[in-house]
Amino acid sequence: MTDTLTSPASQWFAHHGHTLETALATIRSRAYWSAYAEVPSGKLYGETAKADGEAAFTARLGATFELDQPGVEGSSATERSPFGIELGIAYPTSSIDALLAAAAAAQPAWVDAGAELRAGVALEMIARLNHRSFELAFATMHTTGQAFVMAFQAGGPHAQDRALEAVAFAYDEMLRVPRSVLWEKPQGKAEPLRIEKTFAVVPRGIALTIGCSTFPNWNAYPGLFASLVTGNAVIVKPHPQAILPLAITVEIMRATLRDAGFDPNLVLLAVDPPGRPRAKEFAGRAEIAIVDYTGSTEFGAWLELNTHALVYTEKAGVNSVVIDSTADFAGMLRNLALSLSLYSGQMCTTPQNVFVPRAGIDTDAGHKTFDEVVAGLVAAIDALLSAPERAVDVLGAIAADATLARVAAENERPGLVLPSRAIAHPQFPGARIRTPLIVKLDAAQADRYDSEMFGPIAYVIAADSTHSALELAVRSARTKGAITAILHSTDPDVRAAGRRAAADGQVSLAINLTGNLLVNQSSAFSDFHVTGGNPAGNASLTDAAFVANRFRIIETRQPVA
Amino acid sequence: MTDTLTSPASQWFAHHGHTLETALATIRSRAYWSAYAEVPSGKLYGETAKADGEAAFTARLGATFELDQPGVEGSSATERSPFGIELGIAYPTSSIDALLAAAAAAQPAWVDAGAELRAGVALEMIARLNHRSFELAFATMHTTGQAFVMAFQAGGPHAQDRALEAVAFAYDEMLRVPRSVLWEKPQGKAEPLRIEKTFAVVPRGIALTIGCSTFPNWNAYPGLFASLVTGNAVIVKPHPQAILPLAITVEIMRATLRDAGFDPNLVLLAVDPPGRPRAKEFAGRAEIAIVDYTGSTEFGAWLELNTHALVYTEKAGVNSVVIDSTADFAGMLRNLALSLSLYSGQMCTTPQNVFVPRAGIDTDAGHKTFDEVVAGLVAAIDALLSAPERAVDVLGAIAADATLARVAAENERPGLVLPSRAIAHPQFPGARIRTPLIVKLDAAQADRYDSEMFGPIAYVIAADSTHSALELAVRSARTKGAITAILHSTDPDVRAAGRRAAADGQVSLAINLTGNLLVNQSSAFSDFHVTGGNPAGNASLTDAAFVANRFRIIETRQPVA
Repeated sequence: MTDTLTSPASQWFAHHGHTLETALATIRSRAYWSAYAEVPSGKLYGETAKADGEAAFTARLGATFELDQPGVEGSSATERSPFGIELGIAYPTSSIDALLAAAAAAQPAWVDAGAELRAGVALEMIARLNHRSFELAFATMHTTGQAFVMAFQAGGPHAQDRALEAVAFAYDEMLRVPRSVLWEKPQGKAEPLRIEKTFAVVPRGIALTIGCSTFPNWNAYPGLFASLVTGNAVIVKPHPQAILPLAITVEIMRATLRDAGFDPNLVLLAVDPPGRPRAKEFAGRAEIAIVDYTGSTEFGAWLELNTHALVYTEKAGVNSVVIDSTADFAGMLRNLALSLSLYSGQMCTTPQNVFVPRAGIDTDAGHKTFDEVVAGLVAAIDALLSAPERAVDVLGAIAADATLARVAAENERPGLVLPSRAIAHPQFPGARIRTPLIVKLDAAQADRYDSEMFGPIAYVIAADSTHSALELAVRSARTKGAITAILHSTDPDVRAAGRRAAADGQVSLAINLTGNLLVNQSSAFSDFHVTGGNPAGNASLTDAAFVANRFRIIETRQPVA
Repeated sequence: MTDTLTSPASQWFAHHGHTLETALATIRSRAYWSAYAEVPSGKLYGETAKADGEAAFTARLGATFELDQPGVEGSSATERSPFGIELGIAYPTSSIDALLAAAAAAQPAWVDAGAELRAGVALEMIARLNHRSFELAFATMHTTGQAFVMAFQAGGPHAQDRALEAVAFAYDEMLRVPRSVLWEKPQGKAEPLRIEKTFAVVPRGIALTIGCSTFPNWNAYPGLFASLVTGNAVIVKPHPQAILPLAITVEIMRATLRDAGFDPNLVLLAVDPPGRPRAKEFAGRAEIAIVDYTGSTEFGAWLELNTHALVYTEKAGVNSVVIDSTADFAGMLRNLALSLSLYSGQMCTTPQNVFVPRAGIDTDAGHKTFDEVVAGLVAAIDALLSAPERAVDVLGAIAADATLARVAAENERPGLVLPSRAIAHPQFPGARIRTPLIVKLDAAQADRYDSEMFGPIAYVIAADSTHSALELAVRSARTKGAITAILHSTDPDVRAAGRRAAADGQVSLAINLTGNLLVNQSSAFSDFHVTGGNPAGNASLTDAAFVANRFRIIETRQPVA
């Protein structure tokens, strides 16, 4: 790619060098840092940024999304806004053969360009994505059902931070191997053996990113950028309900590649033809060497067993809370109410099972019986969601029909102490908004609580003891998977037992969250996501295990005279 | 493990600190270094070391090998020396349930001990293994058929270097994550969010190392030590024909663990009961989280598809040589003759298919026709092996009956230009020694050469051109796997094409080997082994991809007042 060396692309690595260096330092310290402002503020993004973003989004509606990709055979328009507006965006669909052939053809020049140039292009892509954060926010909001601020953050700067983190890890990993070394082995009194060794980073092949319906950008970017920077072409297959955020992403990435003098087909969007899901077909192709997947346990498990590709997954899980005691009863309930309500529980990090000792708990407000804890949680959720304008900003809308049906069914079952109710959105009359429901159960009723009930559904479960509650939480994590866990306790011994239980269930633990940090939040450069140690998956987002295997090293040895 | 802090084990990390630091520096530079002397010399190992090692080996013969392991149910004596001496060593066999339970029980204290203490224990183990190198040499020689010097190196210092390399990678990888961080996120004008985060390294579970018959120590140590240092208990399941080197290894490792105050069951030997191979049964157990395997493609592929464990493999491959031209015809032939003859071709790195353009090649000795190249190679092998005393030191003995049968069958097939012959060993009358056979083929006869023919069997194949030869070599690597490749060319453009072909086939390349470096050799701290990019497997020996996934990180978040 000598022609790019005089193009602006050759300067991108230097231009974004400080960002990359800070990212590299922060993935080591894991201290707080963010490269992209999370507040959707005109002061930070420009006074017209929001209006511009909304206009750009609106211009997409009812139109064909043009990507100039090869092998177009038809089009598909499957998205529906959970807020009830008409989307009607038609995406061109291409044949699998054409997409794979185009990706393969694009790859050699990208590999030859080397780690530094590839990282520079990726950093420029992320910077451009950042400038489009408002457009991405509206796209994310109206496909996932996230309220605007969350959609801005998760579809914009938080996803961009995760992308940057992945680029930093991938770049760091490639640089751990020198490009060459003169290897001199002494041979007694004879001349040493002198061998020139070179070490070339080569991609595994073509990578496939399978997007999800709830966090299309946030979940896709780490694998997508890690694969791309390590030299792999990437095919992005979005969820049929959440195409737009990834389509805009691919559009921006392809334009950046073009500007850099590379083949844009290094990043391709693979929208399913109407009624014809193709994830299995893609994943079964020999050309696909890496699959990143976010979605159901069932399909994730199929991928893990049925493809020869390297597979990274975020599947479902059952997240637990164990309440032993607290020094801030009101704060605990407020924090928990918000965690359960945020985006209507449609987060892989939302707690589901709240275990409380049957004998009740000690708190700063005196001893509380099990029923008083249940009542306290119900009251906290009611208080949080009493004003509809605030409620809709917390809850967002329900993305999937299956979630609506699940909530409706659970609303009719025994043990209900807080029914889910529909709320009208002041701005979007067609929005499907539901408050969380709470069910009171006994630990013996495992058939009710011991599988994932995705959406605004939580169980408060009477356990024999804190010890028994920890055991139940560990069992769930080990057998069903878990991404988060919470323990509330004022007793250091119980907290130590909680840490051991978390290590045993291989799940992240949060202790005594009573303030502004929610267990749902997972921050780039610092928080590991799925641990890889339980059935919830292995998309750590991110560590060396997530990136080191996306490329391979080809060594050449040649004697030197 | 507070009680070990005052024991010698607490000082091992410091005691071996310089060795570890040099290893850490060398895996970055990949320059020449070796921690353990490869010459079986009395000056280096002590004047009585060889005699002591032989005496220790001899004392094992015809006796029961005691390991003090749990769940012993019977015994098994399956080994037979390829040099024809009686071994008759009976190993206790334990039930799978007992071994898994013992490994699981041993693990928690090992995990709690932390990365530094674990690395110190591993470094002490390797130092103790080094002191037993002569005993390990005789054990390796009489199970694998390697001649003494190779057995000393591959069963001793070279395997120990690979173990040290794995410890260095594993230690480095664990240290990339801080133990804790105070994460402070600004909250505008409010107090920052202050969260204490801790990051605990936890093992994946119990690791299984499945040994091979040809390089039991060299192939087993990297995975074994990488798993152990990252906190996993390890069960070592040796090949029924090559138990002793790994039994002595496990004995030394268990003694070291005992001396350090740990449960010796962190490392267990799992010898198969007579006639009852148990690798599948072990690998199918849910407790097994990591499998390291060296052996046949068939079983390796079964493992990759049928276990939920993380699997690292070294399977079979078809290694190619492409001869385009040479500036040292005689040196090239000498080097190739030695590569084909060393340990009778029973190395995963031995070349099999030598592609030569049908029109012949240019050399420093003038143009050589295809038939002249074939004749030159035959003459070079004859010259190398003309003296039986030297021949047996190069060839060693044949380990497997299947290899003997394969050689006998190939000796009768068309195209034979150098038959394999039996040689008598001056010291071991029962030794089964065979010289390499050479078959002349055309590129069209892919059915003859395009699958692995393990043992002293090589094909010289007439190709349409150098370009076509490179294509055939790439196709073999991609479809059958390959661990090594050689290119001989005086033309820089052809060498560049060779590098591209190697990247395409994802195989290590050696160029113009005419002197003392053999393609068969793979040096710790510098050479990557299996690339992971073709069907030969992914046991890179070693890089971050080989170690980073053997442990997981469990994060705990707790707000700080």
